[in-house]
Amino acid sequence: MLDFTGWLVINGTLLFEVIGIFAFALSGLLEAARKRLDLVGMITVSGLTAFGGGTLRDILLDRRPFFWIENSAWVWVLIGICLVALVFMRTRHLEPTQQAMQWPDAVGLGAFTAGGTQLALDGQVPAIIAVIMGVLTAIFGGVLRDIVVNEIPKAFSDHIPYSVIAFTGGWVVVGLNYLAIEPFIAVAIGALFTITLRVLALLLGWRLPAWKA
Amino acid sequence: MLDFTGWLVINGTLLFEVIGIFAFALSGLLEAARKRLDLVGMITVSGLTAFGGGTLRDILLDRRPFFWIENSAWVWVLIGICLVALVFMRTRHLEPTQQAMQWPDAVGLGAFTAGGTQLALDGQVPAIIAVIMGVLTAIFGGVLRDIVVNEIPKAFSDHIPYSVIAFTGGWVVVGLNYLAIEPFIAVAIGALFTITLRVLALLLGWRLPAWKA
Amino acid sequence: MLDFTGWLVINGTLLFEVIGIFAFALSGLLEAARKRLDLVGMITVSGLTAFGGGTLRDILLDRRPFFWIENSAWVWVLIGICLVALVFMRTRHLEPTQQAMQWPDAVGLGAFTAGGTQLALDGQVPAIIAVIMGVLTAIFGGVLRDIVVNEIPKAFSDHIPYSVIAFTGGWVVVGLNYLAIEPFIAVAIGALFTITLRVLALLLGWRLPAWKA
Repeated sequence: MLDFTGWLVINGTLLFEVIGIFAFALSGLLEAARKRLDLVGMITVSGLTAFGGGTLRDILLDRRPFFWIENSAWVWVLIGICLVALVFMRTRHLEPTQQAMQWPDAVGLGAFTAGGTQLALDGQVPAIIAVIMGVLTAIFGGVLRDIVVNEIPKAFSDHIPYSVIAFTGGWVVVGLNYLAIEPFIAVAIGALFTITLRVLALLLGWRLPAWKA
Repeated sequence: MLDFTGWLVINGTLLFEVIGIFAFALSGLLEAARKRLDLVGMITVSGLTAFGGGTLRDILLDRRPFFWIENSAWVWVLIGICLVALVFMRTRHLEPTQQAMQWPDAVGLGAFTAGGTQLALDGQVPAIIAVIMGVLTAIFGGVLRDIVVNEIPKAFSDHIPYSVIAFTGGWVVVGLNYLAIEPFIAVAIGALFTITLRVLALLLGWRLPAWKA
Repeated sequence: MLDFTGWLVINGTLLFEVIGIFAFALSGLLEAARKRLDLVGMITVSGLTAFGGGTLRDILLDRRPFFWIENSAWVWVLIGICLVALVFMRTRHLEPTQQAMQWPDAVGLGAFTAGGTQLALDGQVPAIIAVIMGVLTAIFGGVLRDIVVNEIPKAFSDHIPYSVIAFTGGWVVVGLNYLAIEPFIAVAIGALFTITLRVLALLLGWRLPAWKA
């Protein structure tokens, strides 16, 4: 039985968080499938993508235990998803497109950024560090995914606003904390702000300035 | 003079452990040679392969000091092996084949999995986490080796049962601990079980389910 | 306003350190530009190159807080440099050559090696471990930079003495500590020794033994 109560109480973003973890795990799974990794590769890359960012944040902030160690049921969920996906993809050649994944991924971006920033703020670090921890939480799972499958991280090279939006959303959380808003509310607003910005970026095709050819 | 006493007492797998470290260090060395790395690359990749998995496990479990810091003589051993290998390979063009390395590597797989799982269990983590720590201890040295030399980790992509066997062996250690078997014995049996399974997989050509082309 | 006082007191190499950080950050920036990464990639790769080695050392030695968390103004400096560089490189096509960067980089190599070795010695680790921590501090930023942009780390493959020189310089710091020389002086001499050796290696074209073709 999954017990999410602890996490729920900590930052009050249960639903967002869960959507984000699933979205990130699936993005790892899709990448693993694209690279024809085996079952072990699928599980590892999914796990890295879903929990790598938060784990790196916790190592840097010296927080223990990690989320996935405290809530070890998630590891089973991950293994289950990968087994199902492996069977499913083999028999039906079904590959949900990366296109479709962008929407739940935006939810994950918002939840992880806002939650990570708040956790760092609770640890009394300077504002800029808290924001960077929020960004790391949101993007480093994907960065590790890309490094493991031997590609230059998309977050660093595709000129689509992603980390920059997380960076902005982190400052919203910091700002609301300075205004002495309840952390629960600050995280919720920060997450919604980030998600909205990301959805706008996707719908309107925003781009970061690119290099001249 | 090398002092392994501390390690010997901790999990009682001295001989296995030593064979495993040498096997993993040599696998790093061979990979470094194949990629024509220089002396520094050889030492680093050997060291990463031999100690990377255990170090990652210790970072995740927040255990200190690391094995190679406590037993720093190993660092000299590693540097010595690499210097000898460099001279030897230059003059005789001798490259022990990866084929030949599979057998000591199987011993390392068993020793690292069983030892890592037991260490994690001693730290009171849930069973699934202990098993994952055992698997990480055994495979992540090789994963880091492959990432550094810019390849997709073999452990994730070659469809040869390796991590899956470690995963099974970890559960054996967990099971024996639940039966209140002496940790020393649990590690020994778990290691032997894993080694046997790996040797069988190699001899009988077992494969993980692969993607349809 | 940047406050370096804490750092200055710790190992007394303020100027060296600052030159080193800028040199390493710029080397990350150049690599990011060469790979056409976007703004986020530039900032991350610059930051990894400048602070990755020291952060890894601090994780391994379990030291907290990290330099860049304690002196968070550096994060702003880094973001500023990258924004300026992005504008500058776009409009003027100015790319300082890697050639020109070798000299400040040599200063960074010396400062980071000597400082890292001394910090580790202060933590009561064995001499060889202290030296390795010094080398890690100096080279692992660059190693992470190369891994992220999907190349085999230059430090492991270019046969130009770099880590080997850091290794030698680390032993100078260790030796001076055994002679009960003031740490401040030991670091300064170790850094100067390393810088001199590196400059000689560059001027005289020293090479590590290479593999037969």
